[in-house]
Amino acid sequence: MSNDLYRFTATEALKRFEDGSLKVSEYATSLLDHIDQRQPAVQAFEYIDRSQVLQQARALDDVPKDKRGPLHGMPTQHNSPIYKDDQPELDAASVIMLRAAGALILGKTRTTEFAATVKGPATTNPHDSSRTPGGSSSGSGAAVADFQAPVALGTQTGGSTIRPGSFNGVYAMKPTWAAISREGQKVYSLILDTLGLYARSVDDLKLLADVFGLKDDQPPRVPTDGVKGMKFGLLRTMVWDQARLGTRNAMEKGVELLKSHRAEVKEIDFPADFDRLPDWHSCILKSDGRTAFRPEYMVAKDKLDRSLVEHVEEAHGYTRGAYLEAFDGVSALRPKWDAIARDYDAVIVPSVPDEAPEGFESTGSAVFNSMWTALHVPVINVPGFQGEHGMPIGLSLVAPRYHDQALLDVAKVVGEIWEKEGGWSGKL
Amino acid sequence: MSNDLYRFTATEALKRFEDGSLKVSEYATSLLDHIDQRQPAVQAFEYIDRSQVLQQARALDDVPKDKRGPLHGMPTQHNSPIYKDDQPELDAASVIMLRAAGALILGKTRTTEFAATVKGPATTNPHDSSRTPGGSSSGSGAAVADFQAPVALGTQTGGSTIRPGSFNGVYAMKPTWAAISREGQKVYSLILDTLGLYARSVDDLKLLADVFGLKDDQPPRVPTDGVKGMKFGLLRTMVWDQARLGTRNAMEKGVELLKSHRAEVKEIDFPADFDRLPDWHSCILKSDGRTAFRPEYMVAKDKLDRSLVEHVEEAHGYTRGAYLEAFDGVSALRPKWDAIARDYDAVIVPSVPDEAPEGFESTGSAVFNSMWTALHVPVINVPGFQGEHGMPIGLSLVAPRYHDQALLDVAKVVGEIWEKEGGWSGKL
Repeated sequence: MSNDLYRFTATEALKRFEDGSLKVSEYATSLLDHIDQRQPAVQAFEYIDRSQVLQQARALDDVPKDKRGPLHGMPTQHNSPIYKDDQPELDAASVIMLRAAGALILGKTRTTEFAATVKGPATTNPHDSSRTPGGSSSGSGAAVADFQAPVALGTQTGGSTIRPGSFNGVYAMKPTWAAISREGQKVYSLILDTLGLYARSVDDLKLLADVFGLKDDQPPRVPTDGVKGMKFGLLRTMVWDQARLGTRNAMEKGVELLKSHRAEVKEIDFPADFDRLPDWHSCILKSDGRTAFRPEYMVAKDKLDRSLVEHVEEAHGYTRGAYLEAFDGVSALRPKWDAIARDYDAVIVPSVPDEAPEGFESTGSAVFNSMWTALHVPVINVPGFQGEHGMPIGLSLVAPRYHDQALLDVAKVVGEIWEKEGGWSGKL
Repeated sequence: MSNDLYRFTATEALKRFEDGSLKVSEYATSLLDHIDQRQPAVQAFEYIDRSQVLQQARALDDVPKDKRGPLHGMPTQHNSPIYKDDQPELDAASVIMLRAAGALILGKTRTTEFAATVKGPATTNPHDSSRTPGGSSSGSGAAVADFQAPVALGTQTGGSTIRPGSFNGVYAMKPTWAAISREGQKVYSLILDTLGLYARSVDDLKLLADVFGLKDDQPPRVPTDGVKGMKFGLLRTMVWDQARLGTRNAMEKGVELLKSHRAEVKEIDFPADFDRLPDWHSCILKSDGRTAFRPEYMVAKDKLDRSLVEHVEEAHGYTRGAYLEAFDGVSALRPKWDAIARDYDAVIVPSVPDEAPEGFESTGSAVFNSMWTALHVPVINVPGFQGEHGMPIGLSLVAPRYHDQALLDVAKVVGEIWEKEGGWSGKL
């Protein structure tokens, strides 16, 4: 048995389960051994039970081939930010669907407090243990990058899925808002919270998307000749002044590569009425935090992070009137963005200001993500570039709402180019 | 000890806890005895544990006066539609807040399946056991009307709070959407689901509203002279043709009474762009049901109500495009409604087509409620009228979003008139 079975993507492992050349329990053992070795440095997992995982794996090996689900034996870890020491009897909706599809649940990864603060957990970036893996879905991004699991789940209220995707150099997808149930995961903001997906290949993201029932109105036309003839928008956004060297270079290089593969790239701008989008996101987030954390505040205010206490106490000073202006303002922009994006196969935007910062005091900035979370559109982080310190940098592809499957197909051909020619040399 | 302690409203009982003339355990015993007697006929409760309730009650009696919460010893029952036989370790957010305020949790009341179908549970209407108490929060409405609990919780996605309020002749409030956390209650539609409140008096609703942190931007100006000088809108809505005799008479009588108490009542209409609101609500509900019930569908399709299976299988035929049109269409109407409603102390609209129908095959129509759920505005059912069979009928008061406290103050003075002079003779 090879020692690096754990390096398989989900798609690769599934093929071998199917042709009988690999057992789920063999694959699980390899992953568990690898996790044992890496946990001291990376600390991606909050909870993992080796014997339970192996028992699950053996049970899956006993399932007859014609009864196997689409994710048969596929190790997954979920990042469901539930109270410490709480062991809910019910899985989150996403985990129920994964289990029903035959997935092997490995364990629970680490997140920031309630996936709602920017103070990092103990998880480190697998590419450089002095740097943050991003957050809030810190453990999920790190575990997938570090081959501790082929696929993982996260959530995004600001930039909690896309940012760890870029910082760890993996594919990360924030689907259309509410297209996948986020039930059972702690609420921060009903109108912003979105389930997120992590994988090391677009094919693996597509496996998850199918299980979760992501579907466009139009069956996407699968690209047959790479990006040739495709039309991309390039949007620096109203916060471009916060982009640093790594991201600036990645944007330039990314465009150059697509053009050299005979795609068309057109620079576009937000119309002026999008200017307030970042402020509106912030107002909605903090105001919704007042509702979301009031129960914890009433029970144990002193155990709640200062930033969350401030939401409940309305330290932000937003009135209900300001909230409604933000809520209605963003609502009016959503169809406008869809109309703009419909002219392109995807719009290219930054994922992060730069490579993962050093230290763990902050999981980094969500400034390039929040606007898309508020607009409810699907976003995929595609890795391939690197910053001054050799750390990974990705770019985001964005589409109109409910163009998730189409965006996955575009991400696949774009990813093939950027991963190969984008210049990131530090892949594990 | 009086035998009818169970008839106290929350406000009345609290006053006696405070002056020491009543113990929580005495009040709880009276309620439990009354529930024992009524459960065979009304079947409001799904789960209740007498010894646990009494133990809780005695513990509350032991709390020193200066450590008591605002709902000290107040029996509450919650209607949290969680999987049968599941005993989650975590309370729903609303229940966490109630406990933190010192409430005594009596038990769990009955709802329709996932609070998402119109097929009634075994609960009957306490005013006539051959009739439905409405749904989905069937047990909550019935229990409060039947003096089995002074206050209760529900949810509303279509008309699940206001309809049982009207059918059972109690006050029911659907606050502004997302102003109170609905975490821990089964999701049907993120953009529609709203926590609901039941009580037999507006003062009791206000107790709950305060605990849950409902707050307007402007402190409401408390009416000092009843409804005199107040300005009401009267809106029959685009589905007025579905109103039957009971509701038609109630609307007429309600207006007449307010006018006789020197309030101004002005008939208003929705602008034409509100015409599609009922269809849009239906499209959003069914489409969101696809996301919400996919997990249960994947696990046990055969145990899911046919209507919910149809949501997941998209039997409704709504495309994602149609969903977005409905979602964005309703979003655009919300600020328009607020602007209209801001000219009135409240707008009077029907709560139901008529009194509670006979039988339990259907919990009744939500046709007069869904539009307000979609518009996110606060609604209070005020009882006081009756139908041809002597069953209660209420009318709804509606306000702009985040005018919850102001609406409560208006409901109080309106309720004083309608309850006294509206002609409902069947109060228990």
